[in-house]
Amino acid sequence: MLIVCYKDYKVSGKLKIREEQAPYPNDEEVLIRVKSFGINRPDLLQKKGLYPPPASASKILGLECSGFVEKTGKKVKGIKEGDKVCALTAGGAYAEKVSVHQWHCFNIPKNLAFSEAAVLPEVFMTCWANIFELGSLKQGDSILIHGGNSGIGCAAIQLAKWAGATVICSVRTEEKKNFCEALGCTSVINIGKEDFVEYIQEKFPSKINVILDMIGGDFTEKNLRCLGEYGRLVQIAFLKGQFPKVDLMQIIKQRLVITGSTLRARSDKEKKRIADQLKKNIWPEIENGNIKPCLNKEYELSEINEAHEFMENSMHMGKIAVTIS
Amino acid sequence: MLIVCYKDYKVSGKLKIREEQAPYPNDEEVLIRVKSFGINRPDLLQKKGLYPPPASASKILGLECSGFVEKTGKKVKGIKEGDKVCALTAGGAYAEKVSVHQWHCFNIPKNLAFSEAAVLPEVFMTCWANIFELGSLKQGDSILIHGGNSGIGCAAIQLAKWAGATVICSVRTEEKKNFCEALGCTSVINIGKEDFVEYIQEKFPSKINVILDMIGGDFTEKNLRCLGEYGRLVQIAFLKGQFPKVDLMQIIKQRLVITGSTLRARSDKEKKRIADQLKKNIWPEIENGNIKPCLNKEYELSEINEAHEFMENSMHMGKIAVTIS
Repeated sequence: MLIVCYKDYKVSGKLKIREEQAPYPNDEEVLIRVKSFGINRPDLLQKKGLYPPPASASKILGLECSGFVEKTGKKVKGIKEGDKVCALTAGGAYAEKVSVHQWHCFNIPKNLAFSEAAVLPEVFMTCWANIFELGSLKQGDSILIHGGNSGIGCAAIQLAKWAGATVICSVRTEEKKNFCEALGCTSVINIGKEDFVEYIQEKFPSKINVILDMIGGDFTEKNLRCLGEYGRLVQIAFLKGQFPKVDLMQIIKQRLVITGSTLRARSDKEKKRIADQLKKNIWPEIENGNIKPCLNKEYELSEINEAHEFMENSMHMGKIAVTIS
Repeated sequence: MLIVCYKDYKVSGKLKIREEQAPYPNDEEVLIRVKSFGINRPDLLQKKGLYPPPASASKILGLECSGFVEKTGKKVKGIKEGDKVCALTAGGAYAEKVSVHQWHCFNIPKNLAFSEAAVLPEVFMTCWANIFELGSLKQGDSILIHGGNSGIGCAAIQLAKWAGATVICSVRTEEKKNFCEALGCTSVINIGKEDFVEYIQEKFPSKINVILDMIGGDFTEKNLRCLGEYGRLVQIAFLKGQFPKVDLMQIIKQRLVITGSTLRARSDKEKKRIADQLKKNIWPEIENGNIKPCLNKEYELSEINEAHEFMENSMHMGKIAVTIS
């Protein structure tokens, strides 16, 4: 089968496509013939050697895909050869074939193309786990989502809106601001023009209940100043800095919480719990059109480097998919 | 009435005793004739001007006391003149008389002296709120308590033991180590001799569920390295530094929580909720002798400066009370 190779990325500065042996599913896995896979920011780090995959995972890039089930392990239940699925992968989705734990497969929502379904698992699972489980967002709460135009941002905005929260997000351009407003945000802050702490303190004097942040660095201390009593800062990455300073006085005076998670480090069982919640609560909303995959751009496998560049330059508004024809 | 005055502390370096008008209880308050009050670390900061009391609170020092009820407000229920009580005060306990919200009064547990009862409210309420409510400590969990010999430490060790947790604490001398072992700690780390991170990683390879910390500074980053998956770092003060660095990777890889609180900043209603939990769960344990007030030393009102020095020099193992004869 064909895979996207990144091993000599450091030499060539490019991902390459080469031939390799297809994986074989174990008893709990299904083998998917990939029609489309999603690009995620951790992929950009992993190709540079900055985000080593877990020991048990494929060394090939790729955290999500859609396609046809080609083979099923002995203990697989409820999924059969020929089924159309999308799935969260532990790695290996940048390929014609990938093995996936049965628990991490989803039906493709009615009326969705393979490319649209391919970009659902990673961001919706990440957002569900962080916003609702760790962040305990509930109806009537307010949430501030940084990078509202990102793949994560689009999923987060829609999930928070679905939960009945007041949704505020930050972006860096007017174009991205319009995009997030169209997604249904209550307020969008263009942090290219405005200071988000001042904005929140002026417009939301009772402050924010939950912040979803992938920036870190100097955002961390600013985020704490935007939170009200019992507010939760949920960190899912740290594009601007891994070791921010925090003000313990802010935390103890207002009983704040700093927490966060990555999806990849979780056990199969935890991923199943999250996937099951999405199947029950969110897949019906996608099928009836209330929640959208926000597919921004689609590339062919041969254009994989262009797809990465598009994300590296932060040009995207929503998700990027790569299709294998 | 006599009160302890600290207003010219900066000039004289001493607390002084002077005469002042007694407070008058509002409808929800009781006036207590103070027999004994407890010394707490925030008092040391407040006298130096480093811990301003909330706007609504008395400017006089003192967060807890015991004594006789002398007067009751119109809306007070279940407490009458002449009752012996101990209480959490919003301030003002360093005095012959203090007004206290009715919700924050406790019966004095059977067989306890006024001086023993006076030192219960602040540390037991602080520990209950932080260990069980914010830290979610449960049976079978492990907890690391820094400063095990402090007033907070003694209460924390006993509450955690009562809950069925494995209790580890850190201290700075062998004498304090013996003291904490006698209180029933599973393990005591003398951090004058040993690195607590190495100790935990060696002796508790599955790591710690909850850490109760009042140190901050470089302890914060070390604490995070001691926590296992879903571990909670609960901060109640920061003697070594208010602005520590944190490693966001540690947090998101293990889904850690950093949180914390002070008791004083909470609403009357929150304090009531915490007090009610103690009355129900812990007061019976104090009455049957399973949990002790850990009164270390008792001073007369005229020795107030000696009492402060004893805590300032970290000589204490348990609580310090001042008695008004």
